[in-house]
Amino acid sequence: MELIYQGKTKDVYKLEGGNVLLKFKDDVTGEDGVFDPGANTVGLTIEGAGKSGLRMTKYFFVKLAEKGIPTHYVDANIDEVSMEVKAATMFGKGLEVICRYRAVGSFLRRYGAYCEEGQPLDAFVEVTLKDDDRKDPPISKDGLAQLGILTKEEYDTLEALTKQISDVVKEELAVKGLELYDIKLEFGRDGATGDVMLIDEISGGNMRVYKDGTYIPPMDLEKLVLA
Amino acid sequence: MELIYQGKTKDVYKLEGGNVLLKFKDDVTGEDGVFDPGANTVGLTIEGAGKSGLRMTKYFFVKLAEKGIPTHYVDANIDEVSMEVKAATMFGKGLEVICRYRAVGSFLRRYGAYCEEGQPLDAFVEVTLKDDDRKDPPISKDGLAQLGILTKEEYDTLEALTKQISDVVKEELAVKGLELYDIKLEFGRDGATGDVMLIDEISGGNMRVYKDGTYIPPMDLEKLVLA
Repeated sequence: MELIYQGKTKDVYKLEGGNVLLKFKDDVTGEDGVFDPGANTVGLTIEGAGKSGLRMTKYFFVKLAEKGIPTHYVDANIDEVSMEVKAATMFGKGLEVICRYRAVGSFLRRYGAYCEEGQPLDAFVEVTLKDDDRKDPPISKDGLAQLGILTKEEYDTLEALTKQISDVVKEELAVKGLELYDIKLEFGRDGATGDVMLIDEISGGNMRVYKDGTYIPPMDLEKLVLA
Repeated sequence: MELIYQGKTKDVYKLEGGNVLLKFKDDVTGEDGVFDPGANTVGLTIEGAGKSGLRMTKYFFVKLAEKGIPTHYVDANIDEVSMEVKAATMFGKGLEVICRYRAVGSFLRRYGAYCEEGQPLDAFVEVTLKDDDRKDPPISKDGLAQLGILTKEEYDTLEALTKQISDVVKEELAVKGLELYDIKLEFGRDGATGDVMLIDEISGGNMRVYKDGTYIPPMDLEKLVLA
């Protein structure tokens, strides 16, 4: 197996036949030892974080497949902490797509003059460029089209999928008495068809979830969701 | 005359009858004594800058009126360095609307991973919130609607007016052998009708203009344009 990319929270290998294997690591994003799903740096290592993230990811990707939502998911091996996925091409150097139900994190930091912390938002979607050096700048639909990163039609697909996927996660969590505040997704083009599809993972590491107003850390979240 | 607001580059007075008087000052935005149209601080004072800015503003606002583009302009008194305008209500705490023909300034700082300095852009419009503390964050059409700052219909009007106005300025400059790289406009609602209209000024202080690849400072620009 050829290692083709080492990410902050997973390593990526090329499989024979064209698919890709993602090995989940125990590193999580954050700063100064504190977990932050919006951070660009690995803040801490938590034993079992990789396996926990993979369990959640498998759970949600299987749910999404049942609903006919296009994702890169093929199969997962929990013991080996790995997930087989379809090959994808990135939009530019990678985008993060955030869906927000409450004003927290970078939304609050940017737009705090116009909102209160925790104020409800209407499944608000925004896109940032994956660019550590430039602190993941937000970019508009027009900006993405202007720079040739994706077409306006692809943007509309990506935005609709983001709301659809985030609503699935929100509803699943609500059943367990949990509230989704925001979630960060990644998309790519299906290597075979070129269609927009969900890539990466869906785990506690890329969402903020609260129970009765208290933030639930990723590994506690997995236990509550998969209980 | 009642002083109702002291801005970085002009003071605002209320006139009897409901109109407003803008007194242009010699202060220009910048940092460390260097002019920068994108800066949030007054960087330097240049004798005659206010009068120069007003002359340019009058020139362009009269042009725009001839084309039926809605602005707040009523009249200007060059000797008194003042401009009478219609009363306007702001969008939230104020927006800046930028139209870009070349990748420079904050666009390049944010999106430099995807463009070269000076690369042509297709009259690219973006909006930032006037918020010094949060460094004038960019905000999308959806974000503006989400926060109740302006409706999606008002955004479309504002964007179309921005391109129309910027194109008028670009063409006027081109006649003098000058090239507009970007321009920053401000809009408000007409105090009487509620319609979106151009407010503030159009001068060297809110645009980047080049001649044969060399940047032209505001007061030199006025001399070239009004020669």
